[in-house]
Amino acid sequence: MNILIQNGTIITVHNRRIICQGAIAIEDKKIIDVGKNNELKRKYGRGYEKIDAKGKVVIPGLINTHQHAAMSLLRGYADDLHLQEWLEKWIWPVEKHMTPNDIYVGASLTAVESIMGGTTTVNTMYHFTPEENEAKAFADADLRGVIGHVCFSWRKEEDRKALEDLAKKWHDKADGLIRASVDPHAPYTLDPEYMKELKEIGKELNKKYGSEEAPITWHIHTAETNDEPEKIRKAFKIQLKNGIMKYLDSLGFLDEHVIAAHCVALTKRDIEIMKQRKVKVSHNPISNLKLASGVSPVPKMLKEGITVSLGTDSPCSNNTADMFETMKTTAILHKGVNKNPTLMPAQQVLEMATIEGAKALSWEKEIGSIEIGKKADLAIINLNKPHLCPLYNEASHLVYATKSADVETVIINGKIVMENRNLTTLNIDKVMEVAEKTKNSLLERLARNVK
Amino acid sequence: MNILIQNGTIITVHNRRIICQGAIAIEDKKIIDVGKNNELKRKYGRGYEKIDAKGKVVIPGLINTHQHAAMSLLRGYADDLHLQEWLEKWIWPVEKHMTPNDIYVGASLTAVESIMGGTTTVNTMYHFTPEENEAKAFADADLRGVIGHVCFSWRKEEDRKALEDLAKKWHDKADGLIRASVDPHAPYTLDPEYMKELKEIGKELNKKYGSEEAPITWHIHTAETNDEPEKIRKAFKIQLKNGIMKYLDSLGFLDEHVIAAHCVALTKRDIEIMKQRKVKVSHNPISNLKLASGVSPVPKMLKEGITVSLGTDSPCSNNTADMFETMKTTAILHKGVNKNPTLMPAQQVLEMATIEGAKALSWEKEIGSIEIGKKADLAIINLNKPHLCPLYNEASHLVYATKSADVETVIINGKIVMENRNLTTLNIDKVMEVAEKTKNSLLERLARNVK
Repeated sequence: MNILIQNGTIITVHNRRIICQGAIAIEDKKIIDVGKNNELKRKYGRGYEKIDAKGKVVIPGLINTHQHAAMSLLRGYADDLHLQEWLEKWIWPVEKHMTPNDIYVGASLTAVESIMGGTTTVNTMYHFTPEENEAKAFADADLRGVIGHVCFSWRKEEDRKALEDLAKKWHDKADGLIRASVDPHAPYTLDPEYMKELKEIGKELNKKYGSEEAPITWHIHTAETNDEPEKIRKAFKIQLKNGIMKYLDSLGFLDEHVIAAHCVALTKRDIEIMKQRKVKVSHNPISNLKLASGVSPVPKMLKEGITVSLGTDSPCSNNTADMFETMKTTAILHKGVNKNPTLMPAQQVLEMATIEGAKALSWEKEIGSIEIGKKADLAIINLNKPHLCPLYNEASHLVYATKSADVETVIINGKIVMENRNLTTLNIDKVMEVAEKTKNSLLERLARNVK
Repeated sequence: MNILIQNGTIITVHNRRIICQGAIAIEDKKIIDVGKNNELKRKYGRGYEKIDAKGKVVIPGLINTHQHAAMSLLRGYADDLHLQEWLEKWIWPVEKHMTPNDIYVGASLTAVESIMGGTTTVNTMYHFTPEENEAKAFADADLRGVIGHVCFSWRKEEDRKALEDLAKKWHDKADGLIRASVDPHAPYTLDPEYMKELKEIGKELNKKYGSEEAPITWHIHTAETNDEPEKIRKAFKIQLKNGIMKYLDSLGFLDEHVIAAHCVALTKRDIEIMKQRKVKVSHNPISNLKLASGVSPVPKMLKEGITVSLGTDSPCSNNTADMFETMKTTAILHKGVNKNPTLMPAQQVLEMATIEGAKALSWEKEIGSIEIGKKADLAIINLNKPHLCPLYNEASHLVYATKSADVETVIINGKIVMENRNLTTLNIDKVMEVAEKTKNSLLERLARNVK
């Protein structure tokens, strides 16, 4: 489908260019032109579906770089608890009863929530099963995503098979919407030999199914809490002498295709190594605060030129998939705790949620900004709302005042997936109805202690 | 008008009672009954307008205890700057050009935004002028509010007159929607003699216009930043030996009718004095982070039994009037910075935004919870949204996942002021159009340097 978006304010993110009275022409999956309305209107007349963006801003779709999409089924299931109690008494027991279908249902719900909030790409880590999975849920919703299979030392055989299945069936599939990643859970749940092996497995899978343009990446929780070295010592009798990043580097794990989620408990040395190895970061401020993990030293990483992107984490430690909320929290949190209001200005945070997210997923050649030749992943936001009035500065409004509900229309891969808040790919009511039923069935199985 | 709200889940806040399949009967301005649907349906049939709240929750309207409502006109005007630069180079110069009409327009915009986000009472501090003002804007919008006139040492004569005008014209007026307060700006902008005088003026005004049920209160910025003692020293050559609260107490200023906004830079001694004097607190986490003031020791104050309520601060230091956002930020921030995820559980934060807000404004006999005999100030929230699905726990969803746009219907003083997101009192488009024009005119006067 050919589309011409007209009359909007285009926040390209590319070179921080903003086009008032702008237009975007889309053919097939790609942006073929970006410029002033007058020019584009003349060039792209017939055969283009017109979208009027008057009084609206058009932004690159937001990129959520850390999720566990299936866990939306546990949104609000348990809050306000100590991490270990939360995991051991609440989350893990119920997760044991989750079926492949439950995973599909939860991921569908997250896909719907994401799209409705202007998010067009989600990097998710969960259990992959060939029959039903997050990849299928995203593809069915026309949501772009990197789908990872989460690996643990206690199930190596299962992991190896799942990784092969995932890469073979889904990497660079569904019209290029879906990519695969290799996801070691965390340094304290994987023994060093297995970490090394997973790096190699990723490389092998890349040779078979990946390409330079579409690499299979690695996604891992790292330095989420201060006690990670202690957990590693307990699990594997390894005493970290030089910090967590030095340890991961000694295993040959770190490179530019690794995205490390959280990165809260970092030393100066950790940051140096991350810089050297070009490790990418997913910052998850809401989850880090809610789980009381602490505050990531984001300004320090940014100062070193490290790519820091934004994630929501799972909907049971947040409890939403709202990237606008994450942008605002990022912008204000680091000002407050560092007592410096000039840190994390709006424009920079907007970039973290778009182009930096694309870089973090090694996908920046195709997504993350509004540029000719890139995939058409866009969100159109209606500024005609009392809380967005009056208007001085679009970037300020996008970061500090816009709500997910202000997103009106979303295009992914050149296809309109939401128009005036109606999804074109899924029935919202049906997805919610199925999710509620699936949750009830899950709780019932938990009570009876059956799968 | 008589109203029967039916079939909803009623979050009364009173004694933490939740009524599934509940109903609320409203006559004139008051809640006359609360209970199970079956019972109330039988008792209140004819002559009651029915509101179906199936699949929805009904909560006490949210209470925003620190605002400068008129400043919505400056939303996004200047961000990401050091406080003094922000004030001196941006905010104060433009404020000099604000007319009484601008104040009315800005306050109307905030009233609309507040109502649309489920806020039914706003405590606002700004410049009062008799002809056009925030009180009139709130009354025209049917929004409940405490309207303060902000006082400074440099304009005592003007302040005295404004306070008398405000109390006489507006205290306990507009069907009891509007109350007045005496608002010393801050301890560093008012000399000690003037602080004492304003306490006395408040007492005199109370004798003339107030009552035990409807007292005129005091509202002041306190301990917003660490350098407040130094500012006081510079301004008045007073060296604070025992902290800011001891100083204010020595002036006879502190009592149960004082609401202190911010309270970031507090010592243990300050907290002790606040407890003794029953001072009320308005916590403004988003503004405190954005302006890099720091993080208020809210858990410590709560532990001492101090009433801590929530405020958004002005829409130019936040940049919204969204109490849902403020609840979530409050709940997660203190967990994160104190590394304790059990702090500030959802139920407690919901109370801070409702009944504790009412207490903070000395208005708890009439508002803040859903109880027979209280004023009918309610918000009905539609939970049938992907980001609120599935449902385990209403309090969790209200604090961690609900967005202001999920508020569907709002009742204030027994009157439906918003129904299915349409305002019944004001034309939303008109308010926005006027606000945008007013902002342009303000900028133009600033550029020409004329009033």
